[in-house]
Amino acid sequence: MADDLIDLRSDTVTRPSAAMRQAMAAAEVGDDVYGEDPTVRALEAEVAAMFGHEAALFCPSGSMANQIALQLLVPPGAELLCDADAHVVTYEMGAAAAYGGVTSRTWPPVGARLDPDVVAGMVRPDAPWVVPTRAIAVEQTHNRGGGGVIPLDTLRELRRIADAGQVAVHCDGARIWNAHVADGVPLATYGALFDTLSVCLSKGLGAPVGSLVVGSADRIERGRVIRKRMGGGMRQAGILAAAGRYALAHHIDRLADDHAKAARLAEAIAPFGVLATTVRTNIVPLDLTKAPLDAPALAALARAEGALISVLGPRTARLVTHLDVTDAQVDQAATTLTHILRR
Amino acid sequence: MADDLIDLRSDTVTRPSAAMRQAMAAAEVGDDVYGEDPTVRALEAEVAAMFGHEAALFCPSGSMANQIALQLLVPPGAELLCDADAHVVTYEMGAAAAYGGVTSRTWPPVGARLDPDVVAGMVRPDAPWVVPTRAIAVEQTHNRGGGGVIPLDTLRELRRIADAGQVAVHCDGARIWNAHVADGVPLATYGALFDTLSVCLSKGLGAPVGSLVVGSADRIERGRVIRKRMGGGMRQAGILAAAGRYALAHHIDRLADDHAKAARLAEAIAPFGVLATTVRTNIVPLDLTKAPLDAPALAALARAEGALISVLGPRTARLVTHLDVTDAQVDQAATTLTHILRR
Amino acid sequence: MADDLIDLRSDTVTRPSAAMRQAMAAAEVGDDVYGEDPTVRALEAEVAAMFGHEAALFCPSGSMANQIALQLLVPPGAELLCDADAHVVTYEMGAAAAYGGVTSRTWPPVGARLDPDVVAGMVRPDAPWVVPTRAIAVEQTHNRGGGGVIPLDTLRELRRIADAGQVAVHCDGARIWNAHVADGVPLATYGALFDTLSVCLSKGLGAPVGSLVVGSADRIERGRVIRKRMGGGMRQAGILAAAGRYALAHHIDRLADDHAKAARLAEAIAPFGVLATTVRTNIVPLDLTKAPLDAPALAALARAEGALISVLGPRTARLVTHLDVTDAQVDQAATTLTHILRR
Amino acid sequence: MADDLIDLRSDTVTRPSAAMRQAMAAAEVGDDVYGEDPTVRALEAEVAAMFGHEAALFCPSGSMANQIALQLLVPPGAELLCDADAHVVTYEMGAAAAYGGVTSRTWPPVGARLDPDVVAGMVRPDAPWVVPTRAIAVEQTHNRGGGGVIPLDTLRELRRIADAGQVAVHCDGARIWNAHVADGVPLATYGALFDTLSVCLSKGLGAPVGSLVVGSADRIERGRVIRKRMGGGMRQAGILAAAGRYALAHHIDRLADDHAKAARLAEAIAPFGVLATTVRTNIVPLDLTKAPLDAPALAALARAEGALISVLGPRTARLVTHLDVTDAQVDQAATTLTHILRR
Repeated sequence: MADDLIDLRSDTVTRPSAAMRQAMAAAEVGDDVYGEDPTVRALEAEVAAMFGHEAALFCPSGSMANQIALQLLVPPGAELLCDADAHVVTYEMGAAAAYGGVTSRTWPPVGARLDPDVVAGMVRPDAPWVVPTRAIAVEQTHNRGGGGVIPLDTLRELRRIADAGQVAVHCDGARIWNAHVADGVPLATYGALFDTLSVCLSKGLGAPVGSLVVGSADRIERGRVIRKRMGGGMRQAGILAAAGRYALAHHIDRLADDHAKAARLAEAIAPFGVLATTVRTNIVPLDLTKAPLDAPALAALARAEGALISVLGPRTARLVTHLDVTDAQVDQAATTLTHILRR
Repeated sequence: MADDLIDLRSDTVTRPSAAMRQAMAAAEVGDDVYGEDPTVRALEAEVAAMFGHEAALFCPSGSMANQIALQLLVPPGAELLCDADAHVVTYEMGAAAAYGGVTSRTWPPVGARLDPDVVAGMVRPDAPWVVPTRAIAVEQTHNRGGGGVIPLDTLRELRRIADAGQVAVHCDGARIWNAHVADGVPLATYGALFDTLSVCLSKGLGAPVGSLVVGSADRIERGRVIRKRMGGGMRQAGILAAAGRYALAHHIDRLADDHAKAARLAEAIAPFGVLATTVRTNIVPLDLTKAPLDAPALAALARAEGALISVLGPRTARLVTHLDVTDAQVDQAATTLTHILRR
Repeated sequence: MADDLIDLRSDTVTRPSAAMRQAMAAAEVGDDVYGEDPTVRALEAEVAAMFGHEAALFCPSGSMANQIALQLLVPPGAELLCDADAHVVTYEMGAAAAYGGVTSRTWPPVGARLDPDVVAGMVRPDAPWVVPTRAIAVEQTHNRGGGGVIPLDTLRELRRIADAGQVAVHCDGARIWNAHVADGVPLATYGALFDTLSVCLSKGLGAPVGSLVVGSADRIERGRVIRKRMGGGMRQAGILAAAGRYALAHHIDRLADDHAKAARLAEAIAPFGVLATTVRTNIVPLDLTKAPLDAPALAALARAEGALISVLGPRTARLVTHLDVTDAQVDQAATTLTHILRR
Repeated sequence: MADDLIDLRSDTVTRPSAAMRQAMAAAEVGDDVYGEDPTVRALEAEVAAMFGHEAALFCPSGSMANQIALQLLVPPGAELLCDADAHVVTYEMGAAAAYGGVTSRTWPPVGARLDPDVVAGMVRPDAPWVVPTRAIAVEQTHNRGGGGVIPLDTLRELRRIADAGQVAVHCDGARIWNAHVADGVPLATYGALFDTLSVCLSKGLGAPVGSLVVGSADRIERGRVIRKRMGGGMRQAGILAAAGRYALAHHIDRLADDHAKAARLAEAIAPFGVLATTVRTNIVPLDLTKAPLDAPALAALARAEGALISVLGPRTARLVTHLDVTDAQVDQAATTLTHILRR
């Protein structure tokens, strides 16, 4: 994208900073397929420790991290329960079923307003005549749910339900850092609630590439084989891991800035009745159902004035703040959108 | 089961009558894997014609018929939308995902009270970054939905939605004969609304074994290969097809008797507040949430008095009428259940 | 096929005899999906006992029986070793890979002349960087190997190799009855050498439909779930099982007649140099590489004179004897083929 | 690994040079999932052009590049033919079957001494009763085949066979650069013979991470969706692509040095009768069948003296030269191995 555009499409578009590039250039590396890359090993140990788990595995993408977790938790022929708008059944090209043989059944898309009782009613027993439920997946924060943060109490109740049904819980934590900053819940508190988590270094944290799947030592060992099967075995991956380590050290707390910027954007457009939900983190979800223009039209007009936004559906769109969006750009984008919506 | 028990567990338990056995014993047969079994061919042609489709394929089970249809309509990596309680994602052991690589997303379990608008909101476009919706499945009548009949207008609206989204519609018509009898909708009218259907000969129709998948000639030709892959290529299957032809000729209209019997059972227990829904066909669904005993307890007490019922969940159970349940047995079962519920 | 044709294409084309039809018509049945069909249960117990195994499972086809066994023995991501012409990788439409996720590596097509050392050299260890070998499949008798019988000593050596590598052995025993009759090896002796077997009732034994997978009680219990997933759960399957029980009681020893008939056919055409291999059982394999006409031409000329044969490749064909081929028909077919080859 | 060890295990262990690190640090990047990373785009265009194909796709590993190609060429239920020791059925954890549903049938492991007639005899037609052959895979150079180079004439004959059978040909070209340098065959000449190729930047070429799949524009477009499903969609992947571009510009011709070093190692140990085959490229395969010590013992003794080698089997091992092995190290390794073998 041209550098003068204000890119509010996603927090995935961030580019590594000079300091992060320096960390990559200086990274000590080895052959990670042989388990010999010291920077990857250090990153994996750090992330596992942050969430209070035994082990972690570096992956080229969040989709792979999620899918490794699902293949670990749900055997072919069994099922996963999740939100109908969860990333794992929306944007991962059907990998859970196509590669893992995993049946998915979904609750209506409620994002962070998850109702544990609804989930409880969907869990099925391990019987030879019915598809057994083996895992529940939640997404924290919830991408299509407008960056909403599932309350800690909800997650605790879900854990109780899962334990009662002997079902595992996976957290798609691509943006769990945002939840941690927004709600002040320690990462280890989240970690204790899930059998596996995926966490992403290349969204709000700003690293160029990389996610990790987090879990028990046994699961991660088996996950290493699955990663190889998925084609995720990289050689001198320490180059990428170095960026991740830098991001963990420098870019978590600053997510509060992204949230503040998103709040300012939200405040600016709130009067037009197009906010889909309260903004909690770095995502500003738009519901244009009652607006005079649809999502593609809004995006086109915004682009003409230098701002890029994501179209999610005919009447839904999304703005996302991140470390490559300046305060001045936020102001400018707010002005631009206000003008368009006012017409 | 002992012959003196009243078996209300399912309409699958029927045993072939003497006349049906005679039809089987006299069947003209050939090697159907070579396409040379005249009785199978005749059955396939008859069923295709009944639904106004070009072709049909005889299968050893309704699960196989459904799964062949799903594999025909949805490629690995794409998705199917259906009720969260649909047979295809509940009782077929996850075959759609495990063998077909099909992602399923589900709407809340509403059985026959399907809301086409909810489905419309779930359909996703064919884009390279999202799992594309390729098929919608409905179940007519709806088994876990208490034998409910989806209204013809609902199905027509669903067809319009599917056409708008370029999505196929499959009907799990294991009990479509019951819907036809209950609502008086011609089978060909149903047939015109679906890209594929599965229909079953061994539930209400009383044949020992067999279902068919119905569709276009091209799809059925490809379905024949899938059937072989699924292990459904049978040799002198005309023995079974003869029973099916007999059932089609003699056992469709009589389903009205099963419906009447179910209505009598429902009437008897209605005062106890345990009917889950209005009874339309041959299934009497029980919701024991407010009853003094749970489903396993009810089943155990009923069995002690000679009646078998199905337990579907801790507080849900089911009675099913069929051609092996006599009027006297219905009266006796009604008395038995009334006594138990009155305690 | 017209009844006046001599059908030497396969032993699958046999039609049930009057006595077998009577057995079917009189069969006691129940709902086998509920495990309540007494005739199926009796058949399963009989077959398990014949091979000295704990349990057996009735299936609608030999392909399904084989594939259930492979799914039991080889998890997705692991491998099966077999002959490059084995039925399991040739005629089952790729189910082992498509549904079971099973990698297959093959030794050159040698049919019954299997070299255990070649197999030993292919077995791979259970390591996290290589596809582990989990099963070896043999076919007894070997269909594309011209009905050859793998010698007992070869099978014993293979068992030793498998044990050394902690690998399971499956026998595709669709025609193991023919091997038993040809070599005089007790069925239980064969049974003791394999972890799982599939056996077929609808080839030489003449039943219309049905195969069984044989193995340990634990495996068969899990196989029952896989059968349901494959769509092989049939209801009153006792109708078919009754034919199978009749076949086991009356049609095993008579396979010697089929073998004698095949030997007579082989003797008649041997002078023309077209026998692919020595005839041991009921299959006469033709290698027309040096013949003046190719396989389609031979088949067409034979058909014109009333005899049907199978074309397997441009220059390979097959004659198969079975209980629906009379002595007179064998003589006539021999004369027909002799005339054609003499031209 | 400790830096003072001579690492001859694989050419995957190379670490990026200072210049390559500089190229990475300076890389212009964007979000490649959105198709906006200019360095990735440039790399893909360069590689496609080198092989005379329309398009290429950057992947995190050679395994993923191979598996994307196989999924493009072979639908579930169809088959791939390859060497029994091919990387695609040995080291990719069964992905072709587990994720692609691809049946594999293999010819005996002959590495570069591929016999096209053997392959021709294995090709099966597209018929509804047999698993159809859809692709043949070759590996150039052949890893487990000792780095052998398949002669151009052999590949041309294979192409003719494939065309006759309407079958695609994939080249696992992880080390095709070595073949190009060893035999002087232009890359575009190779490219013209294959429907798809995978090529690797992180083996002999010395980049830290990355492979590409090469093919037609249509295939690569569909491959992009498969890559996302496999979890290979990376964000600012230009960091890695920059290393790849540097490697293409500077590290192809120098492979001749690696070959010369391998030849010197081979010459040194040839007198001991342990060379498995003539050394053509950068791999020195050892066959210790007649040696006084087995592969693990040799590796342990070598390691004790500062040299690392790969154990491939009980009696097979491998030395690989690469850009991180100096002339002095080659001499030292030769001396070390000579001493050990002389004992």
